[in-house]
Amino acid sequence: MAVAKQFFTLKPVQETLESLFNEIHSLSVRETIPTVDAIGRVLASAPHSPVDLPSFNRSAMDGYAVRASDTFGASDALPAYLTVSGQVSMGEVPIFSLQKGEVAVIHTGAMIPDGADAVVMIERTQNVDDSEIEVLAPVAVGENIIKCGEDIRKDSETLPAGHVIRPQDIGGLLAVGITEIEVMKRPKIAILSNGDELVDAHETPEMSQIRDINSHIIAALCQQAGAEVVKSGIARDTMDSLMSLAREGFDNCDMLILSAGSSVSVRDLTGEVINRLGSPGIIQHGLAVKPGKPTIVAACDGKPVIGLPGNPVSAMLVARQVVLPTIQYLLGQEIAPQATISATLTQNIASTTGREDSVPVRIHQTGEGYEAEPIWGKSNLIYTLLRANGLVHVPLNTSGYSAGTKVEVIRF
Amino acid sequence: MAVAKQFFTLKPVQETLESLFNEIHSLSVRETIPTVDAIGRVLASAPHSPVDLPSFNRSAMDGYAVRASDTFGASDALPAYLTVSGQVSMGEVPIFSLQKGEVAVIHTGAMIPDGADAVVMIERTQNVDDSEIEVLAPVAVGENIIKCGEDIRKDSETLPAGHVIRPQDIGGLLAVGITEIEVMKRPKIAILSNGDELVDAHETPEMSQIRDINSHIIAALCQQAGAEVVKSGIARDTMDSLMSLAREGFDNCDMLILSAGSSVSVRDLTGEVINRLGSPGIIQHGLAVKPGKPTIVAACDGKPVIGLPGNPVSAMLVARQVVLPTIQYLLGQEIAPQATISATLTQNIASTTGREDSVPVRIHQTGEGYEAEPIWGKSNLIYTLLRANGLVHVPLNTSGYSAGTKVEVIRF
Repeated sequence: MAVAKQFFTLKPVQETLESLFNEIHSLSVRETIPTVDAIGRVLASAPHSPVDLPSFNRSAMDGYAVRASDTFGASDALPAYLTVSGQVSMGEVPIFSLQKGEVAVIHTGAMIPDGADAVVMIERTQNVDDSEIEVLAPVAVGENIIKCGEDIRKDSETLPAGHVIRPQDIGGLLAVGITEIEVMKRPKIAILSNGDELVDAHETPEMSQIRDINSHIIAALCQQAGAEVVKSGIARDTMDSLMSLAREGFDNCDMLILSAGSSVSVRDLTGEVINRLGSPGIIQHGLAVKPGKPTIVAACDGKPVIGLPGNPVSAMLVARQVVLPTIQYLLGQEIAPQATISATLTQNIASTTGREDSVPVRIHQTGEGYEAEPIWGKSNLIYTLLRANGLVHVPLNTSGYSAGTKVEVIRF
Repeated sequence: MAVAKQFFTLKPVQETLESLFNEIHSLSVRETIPTVDAIGRVLASAPHSPVDLPSFNRSAMDGYAVRASDTFGASDALPAYLTVSGQVSMGEVPIFSLQKGEVAVIHTGAMIPDGADAVVMIERTQNVDDSEIEVLAPVAVGENIIKCGEDIRKDSETLPAGHVIRPQDIGGLLAVGITEIEVMKRPKIAILSNGDELVDAHETPEMSQIRDINSHIIAALCQQAGAEVVKSGIARDTMDSLMSLAREGFDNCDMLILSAGSSVSVRDLTGEVINRLGSPGIIQHGLAVKPGKPTIVAACDGKPVIGLPGNPVSAMLVARQVVLPTIQYLLGQEIAPQATISATLTQNIASTTGREDSVPVRIHQTGEGYEAEPIWGKSNLIYTLLRANGLVHVPLNTSGYSAGTKVEVIRF
């Protein structure tokens, strides 16, 4: 009737992920989708531009297309007098050719007419009458012209494979006529909860039961990271129940996440089930993090399997550190630098050397910038994460921060 | 045949937005959606918890439920010997009551049995045999117990109106049985392009034409910000064409964005059309920003109307500064602090006092942190934004930064 104690040999997250990535395969399934629908998707291959952009020499300014040599030496005191011989309408190919001493009215984006080799900004001119202007400053050959191919050259790479599509990328790709792109198919992630005390979050728990919220938090995190989530339901605390649902989720998906109940018996079961799914099985049980220590990281026949702690706060914070980078690895996604908010700690944060801590904080704006107030609370309290809007990471080799320290807060 | 010069009285973005927000109505249309589908949505009202969470006193640890008084004075040298009289299974209501001298096996999350008022961690105990344990340290009343309502109390606010739903919020709301929430309906934004030189981005432009990419960049930005986009098509450079499409988009949506062609005649038309849509019309024509100066900010009968420059780089960068905060205003969305990446500038950035500059940069990781390399290029080159992965803002009253300066880079 007594409880078995558990001892872990803890390993840092980074080291564990490296071992995991050595044992799993990144995904290879691609799909072709319309460029306009590709926000947040990961490029599977680098699209190359089929054309020069722009495809013709264009004016970069509103003003006059000129022959640069006609403006040499022009100044306020000694303007160049030039004849307005035409106008280039937007969207039209000019049918005339500019002769010596002639200029043509041109707008930004319009095609440079034959004979012209520069554009004088409207601000550097004066009208004499409808057919003559004064140019008040010289222009060099090529000035205020965007040359054919200056934006991007035909056959060059627009964006690298692994890149995550942003609004401007849609613009750049469409600008050269790339209306469809090859992206990585969304990884399918099976999320399986287990625990006799759990009921579906949409049911009303009886006394002593609790709603399964972890699987929904993890599902939302995975979806935000570009994955497709398959809910595998709630397994009971028996080998049969857990094994059959785990096998089904594992076989049908690219990754399996076990959102464990919190009892020791369940944790033991989880480990055994994972090892039966494929080899090598468990790579690491126990991470040098707080919260999230009892996490299981495994690779079964080339697929990642993660066993998350039952505590919702631990589950969420460690999933950010373990599940999200694994999704990025599966997708071959480029790693972006982490943006943070510099803030002054309002209270001490204690940690232990050799352990990485994630501390939820609330960021407040003050007259001098931002303050970060640690949100304390027993580690099981999900509302600590609702009250927080930031996380402070205390790295492995730091024994905490004192109040008044400037820390980098991750928004979350 | 000469070109009209344009003079703007420039105003800073912040001041312009404040004037705009004085003239427009935030939205009032709400909808009720499943909590699990609410990621990124804005709460229209603050949901209050219908229950105490937890709804019963729970163990925060694996160990033994005890009467704290039985452990007083316990130590390694002088343990308290207590009888294991039962076990609380997960998900069950214990049917026994703990008597003096008795303990019950309990797991994290399980219900505290009657008679018990604390939990001793498993690590602070030794087994004598199956029915007796040694407790090696005392516990105080309430220790290792999460009290009923300790996470959140019945009737208290879970999250404020205006809050943007995150993964943990879904967990917290479901934990108290809030399976549906009232969120702001997505604002509908009409995007209308105009310019005789524009063809739809999915068509092949003829010589001298260019693809309309701005409307797609702005659409993607607006969708990322939680809006629903209605493409109003491409208007030609005539009052009739522009007015009829603008009126249609304006009447059917909560906001109208005119993605202008770049010719002066079009810019003049745009201003006239906007003033005809409603009053007061144009609030500001010309922002003290680079790029994006020729932006038009207007309010017509309580709805925002924004005229963006034709240059795609300007259009995107100024839309981030003007359109995104306007969407947040319409939604009544809380303003989150801006996360940035500290990086060392590799080159000087020149600016002008009285003007806010957005400079695209490429962030590189170095041994000592990050470097930000300005991406130069004529301002019309959309690929400058594809090559960039960050933005440096030079504020109004700064005349630029020199190489080697530590700057805050916004990821984009």
